[in-house]
Amino acid sequence: MNYEQIFDQAIERLHSEGRYRVFIDILRNKGAYPNARCFAGHNGPKPITVWCSNDYLAMGQHPKVIAAMEEALHDVGAGSGGTRNIGGNTHYHVQLESELADLHGKDGALLFTSGYVSNDATLSTLAKILPGCIIFSDELNHASMIAGIRNSGAEKKVFRHNDVEHLEQLLAETDPAVPKLIAFESVYSMDGDVAPIHAICDLADKYNALTYIDEVHAVGMYGPRGGGISEREDAASRITIIEGTLGKAFGVMGGYIAADTRIIDVIRSYAPGFIFTTSLSPVLVAGVLASVRHLKSSSAEREGQQEAAASLKQMFRDAGLPVMDSTTHIVPLMVGDPVRTKKIADILLAEYGVYVQPINYPTVPRGTERLRFTPGPAHTADMRRELTSALIEIWQRMELDLRKAA
Amino acid sequence: MNYEQIFDQAIERLHSEGRYRVFIDILRNKGAYPNARCFAGHNGPKPITVWCSNDYLAMGQHPKVIAAMEEALHDVGAGSGGTRNIGGNTHYHVQLESELADLHGKDGALLFTSGYVSNDATLSTLAKILPGCIIFSDELNHASMIAGIRNSGAEKKVFRHNDVEHLEQLLAETDPAVPKLIAFESVYSMDGDVAPIHAICDLADKYNALTYIDEVHAVGMYGPRGGGISEREDAASRITIIEGTLGKAFGVMGGYIAADTRIIDVIRSYAPGFIFTTSLSPVLVAGVLASVRHLKSSSAEREGQQEAAASLKQMFRDAGLPVMDSTTHIVPLMVGDPVRTKKIADILLAEYGVYVQPINYPTVPRGTERLRFTPGPAHTADMRRELTSALIEIWQRMELDLRKAA
Repeated sequence: MNYEQIFDQAIERLHSEGRYRVFIDILRNKGAYPNARCFAGHNGPKPITVWCSNDYLAMGQHPKVIAAMEEALHDVGAGSGGTRNIGGNTHYHVQLESELADLHGKDGALLFTSGYVSNDATLSTLAKILPGCIIFSDELNHASMIAGIRNSGAEKKVFRHNDVEHLEQLLAETDPAVPKLIAFESVYSMDGDVAPIHAICDLADKYNALTYIDEVHAVGMYGPRGGGISEREDAASRITIIEGTLGKAFGVMGGYIAADTRIIDVIRSYAPGFIFTTSLSPVLVAGVLASVRHLKSSSAEREGQQEAAASLKQMFRDAGLPVMDSTTHIVPLMVGDPVRTKKIADILLAEYGVYVQPINYPTVPRGTERLRFTPGPAHTADMRRELTSALIEIWQRMELDLRKAA
Repeated sequence: MNYEQIFDQAIERLHSEGRYRVFIDILRNKGAYPNARCFAGHNGPKPITVWCSNDYLAMGQHPKVIAAMEEALHDVGAGSGGTRNIGGNTHYHVQLESELADLHGKDGALLFTSGYVSNDATLSTLAKILPGCIIFSDELNHASMIAGIRNSGAEKKVFRHNDVEHLEQLLAETDPAVPKLIAFESVYSMDGDVAPIHAICDLADKYNALTYIDEVHAVGMYGPRGGGISEREDAASRITIIEGTLGKAFGVMGGYIAADTRIIDVIRSYAPGFIFTTSLSPVLVAGVLASVRHLKSSSAEREGQQEAAASLKQMFRDAGLPVMDSTTHIVPLMVGDPVRTKKIADILLAEYGVYVQPINYPTVPRGTERLRFTPGPAHTADMRRELTSALIEIWQRMELDLRKAA
């Protein structure tokens, strides 16, 4: 048994497919986002513009968030010191769960250390509690939902992406007496499209299924108070469990679910991924509290971001760049090959100081490798124009196709 | 299908077994730990003394840690804004991984959002990469290791707790050509005993197995530089993967592994729980960097804690309280019944302002419910005496057995 050889082969597979990942080493400049400093492969920090952050609204830089974290740091210290059950249940946690329940119009909410963990822990536990449960899962669901479903051991039926006819077909052929859970996302973050929430809830009503929606790319960003697509479409009350993150639009770190108190109590009491882990640092929780409260009452960040995204998409389309058909804030450019995608990203960083990460398998299916831009309210019109010019130059240099709009 | 009924039954099972968990709502007083404020069930915050925190050395309150977090907060902001691959790889992360690799004398290290995730992600990925791998697991391994092993789908052979003869028996009966991984902890946190690391490594050498040690209750606390039991016993170089947490003795939040760069690269490249999650907030990482560096050069905290633990164990023994046979900083009192354990904890909190959480199933096996005290360098001799007196009074009031030492 030669362990080294097996590990070497695993790494070699990534190199040979052109998808070995190199992490770009950066520090953001607080108060001047999207400006940042890049470390790796340069002599000293080099200034760059970040175009691929999920801190969509720059709330991670917001003065209220920074002030709240500083206050908590000085009031209670760095970490929580324990699990939620053993010393790690601070008053901040209790307050934030109440705030998140209110955001989604639910009776309760539960914090996790990340959005990944909230999906994994909730889905795996829920399907274990419901004997014989079958999970109906959108084929493009995030890796963390897939992990939770697989770890539950429950039977899974995958429906074609956003295809309610296919979903109904699968529901109709399933024993009516069996517990059912439909798991899907609101905004699919690599394509930027949106689920037909009401149509899915209609099916859930018809076939007596529970619903689980992942709103990680939507909370804070859609709906009058930032309650996500389910708030915007007035569908939150129809959904059993809404899952969200505190690490993207809210700008900090962590994940959560919101649901009725009965379900919250079950997950709280039975999910190993919730029970057996040190709770979120109170410093983070304090920052999120400020962020959620701010975005409940302020729509300026949401509007600024929507405008920036619409403008960038239009510039890309006008230039004939292969911008994908996103209906949200996500602006993906399809390249379709991992080596070429990485080369474009490398040129952008080295020659233009533009940081955008190449997106490859397993984050997206092979053959759909892409660049994914996330313009925010702090990306100026000048930045958008410079980015578009840079991409046109690189597309021409690499002899890629620029399809001018008809 | 009545979902509500199933959920209600799940909760009712907990109530009927006396193990429904009530989280105590607290805020620590920075600079005055173990003093804190308790919120739930009282009119306004009530002062308490925390006796069950895993912030073993009070590093979560250390001025260097607080200052480093404040600096990062003002330099780069609240969150990382992305996964390690997509915008979330800050210079702090790179520096901390280098510092942790050095702490354990390994070539590389990898950060995770928690210790739970580091165990789950690493064990499940490792066993998938090694075809046909069999995992040999100590029967008292933590829930997160059990999750990782189960999620790997690999065959598991459980050896009796710390029993190297049983482990050898299981290894000897296994096909020599099959990849093998021995997974165990250094300090078992609910009993306070320590694994025979060298004996296990001898078996790993003899049977060509990889070794994985969970040092979450030991890093920062044992060894001249806080490298854990494996450093204290000069065994780190014999172990394939050392796993640790940043949320206990280091006082903040997060988890990691340290190993040779080949293994780090494999886990970094293949583990969904690492890849698909927003990276640790740079504020946390900056705090941990300060904490790890401080504990590498200062032994005062370790010594203070060892003295406090030895003193408290002696006081408990002298009083005839049923202190368990711990060889570490953990001071568990065996009660053996969930209802009685909770009642003692409730009296301590309500009448004495002493906060210690009852430990029940599934954290420990049924019938071994206990109170678990974690005295630290900041718990004074007066606090220890008051705690012991309170316990004696409660033991007498509840007519429990006080076995005076012979």
